[in-house]
Amino acid sequence: MHVVTILCLVGSWLKFGESLCYRSPNACPQIEKNFLNVHIVPHSHDDVGWLKTVEQYFYGTNNSIQNAAVQYTYDSVLEELWKDSEKKFVSVEMEFFSHWWKEQTSHVKRKVHKVVERGQLEFVGGGWCMNDEATASYVDIIDQMTLGLKFLNDTFGGCAAPKAVWQIDPFGHSKEQASIFAQMGFEYLFLGRIDYQDKASRMSKKEMEMMWNASESLGTEIFTGVLYNTYGPPPGFCFDVLCGDETIVDDPDSPMFNIDRRSKQLVAYILEQSKHYRTNNIILTMGEDFHYQYAHAWYKNLDKLIKYINKVYLNSQIRLFYSTPSCYGEAVKNALVEALPRKTDDFFPYSSDPHAYWTGYFTSRPTFKGLVRQTSHLLQACKQIQAVTVRRLSNVLNQFQRSQAIGQHHDAVTGTAKQHVNNDYVLRLDQGIRGCSQVFSESFNHLLSLNGSTLKQEYCAMLNVSQCQTTEQNTPFIVTLYNPVAFRSSHTVRLPVTDGSYSVTDHLGRLVASQMVPIAEAVLRLPGRNSNATNELIFRAQDLPPLGLRSYHVKTPEGKSGKRMFRSRARTIQLPNKEDVVLSAYGLSLKFDRQTGHLVQIGNQSVQQQLLFYPAMEGNNSRFEFRASGAYIFRPNGTTAFSLEPITELSTVFGPIITEIRQHINNNTMQIFRLHRDESFIELDWIVGGIPIEDGIGKEYISRFTASEIRNNGTFYTDSNGRELLRRQLNHQVTYKVNVTEPTAGNFYPVNSFAYVEDKSTRSRMTVLNDRAQGVSSLLPGSLEFMIHRRLLHDDAFGVGEALNETAYGVGLAVRGSHWLVLENAVARMLAQRMTRPPILAFSPTTLSPEEFRQSFRMELALLNRALPRNVNLLTLEPWDDEGRILVRFEHFFGVGEDERFSQPVSISLKDLFATLNIQAVEEVNLSANRLINKLLDMNDPFVLNPMEIRTFILSTRSIE
Amino acid sequence: MHVVTILCLVGSWLKFGESLCYRSPNACPQIEKNFLNVHIVPHSHDDVGWLKTVEQYFYGTNNSIQNAAVQYTYDSVLEELWKDSEKKFVSVEMEFFSHWWKEQTSHVKRKVHKVVERGQLEFVGGGWCMNDEATASYVDIIDQMTLGLKFLNDTFGGCAAPKAVWQIDPFGHSKEQASIFAQMGFEYLFLGRIDYQDKASRMSKKEMEMMWNASESLGTEIFTGVLYNTYGPPPGFCFDVLCGDETIVDDPDSPMFNIDRRSKQLVAYILEQSKHYRTNNIILTMGEDFHYQYAHAWYKNLDKLIKYINKVYLNSQIRLFYSTPSCYGEAVKNALVEALPRKTDDFFPYSSDPHAYWTGYFTSRPTFKGLVRQTSHLLQACKQIQAVTVRRLSNVLNQFQRSQAIGQHHDAVTGTAKQHVNNDYVLRLDQGIRGCSQVFSESFNHLLSLNGSTLKQEYCAMLNVSQCQTTEQNTPFIVTLYNPVAFRSSHTVRLPVTDGSYSVTDHLGRLVASQMVPIAEAVLRLPGRNSNATNELIFRAQDLPPLGLRSYHVKTPEGKSGKRMFRSRARTIQLPNKEDVVLSAYGLSLKFDRQTGHLVQIGNQSVQQQLLFYPAMEGNNSRFEFRASGAYIFRPNGTTAFSLEPITELSTVFGPIITEIRQHINNNTMQIFRLHRDESFIELDWIVGGIPIEDGIGKEYISRFTASEIRNNGTFYTDSNGRELLRRQLNHQVTYKVNVTEPTAGNFYPVNSFAYVEDKSTRSRMTVLNDRAQGVSSLLPGSLEFMIHRRLLHDDAFGVGEALNETAYGVGLAVRGSHWLVLENAVARMLAQRMTRPPILAFSPTTLSPEEFRQSFRMELALLNRALPRNVNLLTLEPWDDEGRILVRFEHFFGVGEDERFSQPVSISLKDLFATLNIQAVEEVNLSANRLINKLLDMNDPFVLNPMEIRTFILSTRSIE
Repeated sequence: MHVVTILCLVGSWLKFGESLCYRSPNACPQIEKNFLNVHIVPHSHDDVGWLKTVEQYFYGTNNSIQNAAVQYTYDSVLEELWKDSEKKFVSVEMEFFSHWWKEQTSHVKRKVHKVVERGQLEFVGGGWCMNDEATASYVDIIDQMTLGLKFLNDTFGGCAAPKAVWQIDPFGHSKEQASIFAQMGFEYLFLGRIDYQDKASRMSKKEMEMMWNASESLGTEIFTGVLYNTYGPPPGFCFDVLCGDETIVDDPDSPMFNIDRRSKQLVAYILEQSKHYRTNNIILTMGEDFHYQYAHAWYKNLDKLIKYINKVYLNSQIRLFYSTPSCYGEAVKNALVEALPRKTDDFFPYSSDPHAYWTGYFTSRPTFKGLVRQTSHLLQACKQIQAVTVRRLSNVLNQFQRSQAIGQHHDAVTGTAKQHVNNDYVLRLDQGIRGCSQVFSESFNHLLSLNGSTLKQEYCAMLNVSQCQTTEQNTPFIVTLYNPVAFRSSHTVRLPVTDGSYSVTDHLGRLVASQMVPIAEAVLRLPGRNSNATNELIFRAQDLPPLGLRSYHVKTPEGKSGKRMFRSRARTIQLPNKEDVVLSAYGLSLKFDRQTGHLVQIGNQSVQQQLLFYPAMEGNNSRFEFRASGAYIFRPNGTTAFSLEPITELSTVFGPIITEIRQHINNNTMQIFRLHRDESFIELDWIVGGIPIEDGIGKEYISRFTASEIRNNGTFYTDSNGRELLRRQLNHQVTYKVNVTEPTAGNFYPVNSFAYVEDKSTRSRMTVLNDRAQGVSSLLPGSLEFMIHRRLLHDDAFGVGEALNETAYGVGLAVRGSHWLVLENAVARMLAQRMTRPPILAFSPTTLSPEEFRQSFRMELALLNRALPRNVNLLTLEPWDDEGRILVRFEHFFGVGEDERFSQPVSISLKDLFATLNIQAVEEVNLSANRLINKLLDMNDPFVLNPMEIRTFILSTRSIE
Repeated sequence: MHVVTILCLVGSWLKFGESLCYRSPNACPQIEKNFLNVHIVPHSHDDVGWLKTVEQYFYGTNNSIQNAAVQYTYDSVLEELWKDSEKKFVSVEMEFFSHWWKEQTSHVKRKVHKVVERGQLEFVGGGWCMNDEATASYVDIIDQMTLGLKFLNDTFGGCAAPKAVWQIDPFGHSKEQASIFAQMGFEYLFLGRIDYQDKASRMSKKEMEMMWNASESLGTEIFTGVLYNTYGPPPGFCFDVLCGDETIVDDPDSPMFNIDRRSKQLVAYILEQSKHYRTNNIILTMGEDFHYQYAHAWYKNLDKLIKYINKVYLNSQIRLFYSTPSCYGEAVKNALVEALPRKTDDFFPYSSDPHAYWTGYFTSRPTFKGLVRQTSHLLQACKQIQAVTVRRLSNVLNQFQRSQAIGQHHDAVTGTAKQHVNNDYVLRLDQGIRGCSQVFSESFNHLLSLNGSTLKQEYCAMLNVSQCQTTEQNTPFIVTLYNPVAFRSSHTVRLPVTDGSYSVTDHLGRLVASQMVPIAEAVLRLPGRNSNATNELIFRAQDLPPLGLRSYHVKTPEGKSGKRMFRSRARTIQLPNKEDVVLSAYGLSLKFDRQTGHLVQIGNQSVQQQLLFYPAMEGNNSRFEFRASGAYIFRPNGTTAFSLEPITELSTVFGPIITEIRQHINNNTMQIFRLHRDESFIELDWIVGGIPIEDGIGKEYISRFTASEIRNNGTFYTDSNGRELLRRQLNHQVTYKVNVTEPTAGNFYPVNSFAYVEDKSTRSRMTVLNDRAQGVSSLLPGSLEFMIHRRLLHDDAFGVGEALNETAYGVGLAVRGSHWLVLENAVARMLAQRMTRPPILAFSPTTLSPEEFRQSFRMELALLNRALPRNVNLLTLEPWDDEGRILVRFEHFFGVGEDERFSQPVSISLKDLFATLNIQAVEEVNLSANRLINKLLDMNDPFVLNPMEIRTFILSTRSIE
């Protein structure tokens, strides 16, 4: 027994690795060189919501759905760890652990510190949840990891900082995730699910362990190990209270005495497993979903096996002991005699059997995925505002951080939770939005009020269905835009209003040109829309200052001030038309076919676009071949994507700011092709009001873009969690010979930001940006097809137990989204920043005239004293503690070689950068901000940011008043 | 917190109540006079086998059938008790607790002693199991209670002796059981299941608590309380890991905060419950089947509720606390202001709803019930032999004791366990038989060998199908009879043999008259019978000595010694016959109808007998009305009992020792009416080779005896567990107005020994003795119908989940049994002793002639120096420890007023009673032998035994060699 008397002091951010907290040097079990070392790792995989909500899982309510109560897991595991210093356990999801921690007495907390120091309770990963890797944005991944690791650092100090990360359940693994982990200082990454063909190949070649080169730009690498049995115990050796396996009876007097036979079975399994690994260390993952509610059942049986096998198989040189992922990782590393194989691509798509390609969840629950992307952005903006004003965290903001973190769980943003659980995620994010709205309101008053007047600013969460109470019911009103990026940015503002004349006045008192556009019928009819707005008032907000606020005053004009408003009409064209319909504006020209109404040409280039659907496979899942398409699995019935109804009419809307062509497909489905003045992209605003299932067939909708002149030879490119790009090749995998048994589903990949196809010879490229996580493929030459919506009538038998048949207001769930299409090369990164990080709009009614308003409120304010270079994203700006410390991350968002100009390193200085912050000290930390890199960075020295690099700092600040 | 430093010393039988072991005076919570005191009693109801075997339940294997692992219950409960001295738990079944105890370290054992002394861990009942009350014999009940309580006394000393008994699950409650408990010194008896109409009546009258006068002869009484919700928690307040109820959330920040609402619900329940009880104390039974595997889940939530309600409802004067059954009982007793209502009958039959009369289990699994009765007797004999020879326990005997005790569990002898579990019970008893055979063999040699020669004696367990390897395959062979009763006894010996001539020589070298009878065809055809025997060799063993051995030598005679053997032939009479068939022998005369072949007359009295069947109700159990007849429930479809096939022939067998009439009903079903020389009863040996179900209908077979001249007015009498008699009246209950909603099933009662009907005016009586537990009723005037076999095709939805469709050797289970019919009054008790306690037969081949054998072996030996009075049963004679102490019980087996002569008190002296034992000291103890009554009884003084009294002594002995 280790005797450790120095307690781990409660850490703060200052006490990183070098803090006073003490981790026992004997934290890892001793490895015997000449033995087969069997690392028994007790763990519980605790989904942060899935079949039950997070709180239900914690407290153990709703157990008729699933017997799971994480509170008892920690209660009972800790009892076991305290009783026996040999025992280990790994804790992964800080959402649960922190909840448990909050409810403990100081006595218990002190005892927990002890087992952390002894290495008995090891945190692995340590994020708020175990985030999804396909559909989460890198921004959210970094945030959710930082949130969890910060809790650990604040609670236990550096001795609790995880070295290993434990992605045992996500359905495929992204390269960006690996790169992020490497940048966070993790040394060992363990994966549970890789494609079964990949796994077979790796097992045969002893390549279950590898070095993953996760970023070409950064050169990051991380040791990566694939677990032998996903994350479960050897079959038959599950001793949880939830399992039915034969428990170990070592009493020779009992008629059930079995330890001899059972040990033989386990040793046989161990020997088989060890054949597929390089060193004399193997890991047995002793746990499953929500196990260790009653930890003792597990440990009692493991104790018996360990004791017996170590005695009886001593001469066979097999040794079993409790261990942890980091101890296992270290043991493997030390035992390696030659370099590990290398991995440069990612682990997508993931198939678990020939007909189970987990590519459906790339798109499942598109409105929720849209919400998560929206709140991600809102949270960043909110943290920025909070950081530069009150400079400390609030409960409101913390709630939003936690909600957003929970939303990254691999059954949350993935769309693979039960409906009632998804409702809970939405509720949490909605609370976040409300809280954020309050932060904005307070901060805006703080920053903009000149004479003590205050405005209650409201965030309109329903702008995506052209609904906003303030703009519809009040005049005059103020719209304040907050530009959350670090450089000047322009934006087309679209405000839902009732019919009439409006005048828009800017911060300088100038009337701004505006355009009045009728809202499309399909939007007006959207179920649940509760609005009087019939039109959108549109104007351009030009050159918003970096991290800056600007207010516009909108009123119903008296006299002739309304003349700056252009009133657009929608002009209907019945199909077939006599000639093709051409939309030309602001230097762009789109041609739509006279018969079909489909886009056929952009400028001179042949570019088609069409909404289509795949009929979903039905099945009872009794055999692989009978797998149904479901929340996880995409499995179309055949390879043909069918057309929706023919387009019967097009409408055109012309104007000085935007110009549109509207395709009317049916009562609730339409597309709007929108051109913006001064913009080079084509916005495709699509509305799918609900997928019909009256024929009893589930459907999966795609939006297919085809640039038939681009010969891409089955190659296409997708981003990884919104950052680095990956080359995809139809029916091909880099590290193993793949047999793609589902020709459509098996070629889908996740896309978070954009995808493109390119003709290597002509260098012509079609890029499509997306506004939320989706699945994408390029099944036809020159094409990109994005799956945008799914409605299914069968469960796919991977546990969720519900068909993904989303409804709202009594009908199939309606979705509205955008794609931005560009044919220019290399502007995608810039556009992606624009699409992801638009200005935040806040609204307030006012009784003041524009002039009066300018007397009372500052109408423009920059929170940065100077713009950052155009290739730099102010990734993070958030309050870090209650003492004015601020966390800031700068991101170079171009990869090496992506663009001649923007892929160059840049230099940034912190000196006088923030208008409201007086920086007292700067410390550079690792990406997750739980390890100090450079304690006293001279704030006057500019620092360099290389392509794709993110540098993270903690600034000690005072306010500049 | 109680500070208790004196450890409970490990007790021995010497340290009863007055031992050094110390029970805290604060073991019970303090009662507040002006409050409603809510006793929260955590408990786990652990069936000693039901859906899983005993060992599977202990170790938690076979969890797919039922999630249950008692080892974890004790592991985890103890952890909780050690952590918090307020917490309590009750332990009931010593089979499980002792198993657990055996596996603990001395450190743990010391800690368990502490919580026992503090009253935190309270043993209630404390028997080896919670025995059934309908189908268990009083002999087995006393034994199984003694076994458990002895373990407790040996382990913890007197401070662990239970005061309360906890019969929470048996399906009805017997008067004899209550009397036994009272004689064992229990103060509080708690019942879970009483008839729903009885319960409603008691609730309305606040008569849930009562004094039960459990024996008219002995005047015993015991406080008896009926639990409010069987033994479960208030609905919605089940917090076990097996439950799905909403757990308690007291964190006001949680969106699931519910303690306020949940407390309101519980308080409402408490107030409602308290309306039905007399005092300001109520008990909440917080547990269910196999709960507290993970005790912490239960306690954590209870802790929260107790704390919150005691605070918030302080002004409502409600107080919750952990308590135990004995603390609750004591609190009620102290709070009573007037005498409790009295109860003089029993709690049979038990119905849980209008169509669920639990009267099927009185007969379910008739072969198992027969085996249990057989092994009960064998075990007693074996203990006697062991007591008077080696005078100490052996593992073999202890195994048998435990197996027999387990067999008394309320899902064992009841026949309500799953088939695989019943197989396990049988296996255990079979081991017991083998062990006993070994004990006999050794003891016989020890007692009988004159010159060091040894015999291997075998017990023939299959004599009931006329099969015995030794007698079939060897000649000469020895049969040794052991008469286990304390007076001289005679017996008809029937030995399976192959055809031929045999001569039987007794201990005095005299040839004994014998009779050779062909075995009936239906017996020869019994499935599984593996025997060459075609005949039975029959002779009378006259006047076996008290507790005595006698050997007979059997051989194929040379010369004329075979002349003492009478060869009987079976003479067949085809029906209809010209005249009625009359069987007259040894002073008895039976008449069988010439048409039907049924018994119609005995002497002058009209007595009919017939096998009939009730068709079983089918149903899906979805509503009360759709209840199926099953292992627990008897529910015939209609009130008519149908005839089996007509009897086509009778056979008669005449002879000097036995005379028979055999009714051939069909290929596998027959009855043999057997008269014995020198006996006054008619033996009815019935064989039901399997119940046909080809028509898809389950059937319940009865044997109906009708003495139509006896006008009994719906009244009949049954024994209670083989002891005192109870008056039964059709459609009537003593303490409540009953509406018998199942006119047949609702009038069945358990019978263990005998039942009779009587004509009050003529004093004529028909008594039928049975050889195993059965259900009986008297639905027709003058009749007694015994249910003898059941074969059902549906489960009755009370948990067992299997239809009671027993098969063996691929066909429906065959049963062979006996009824003894007598028309004389008052001989039933004597006959019951004879039927229950026949001599034990052991067999051995020999090469010796009778004369040689007499040189080598003593052929008769009495282990008592004198016979006891004819109304006294040597109930127990067993080794008690390893130091020569012997437990002995004397039983007066007549009740007050049953018989003019035999119901008188008798006087018994221990002096020189046992031939092989030199008694050094005598201590009188209570019935369960865990409390000293009289330390130094003078062994020279005779003691008096009153009617129905059992007196228990522990004798310190030395051998007389």
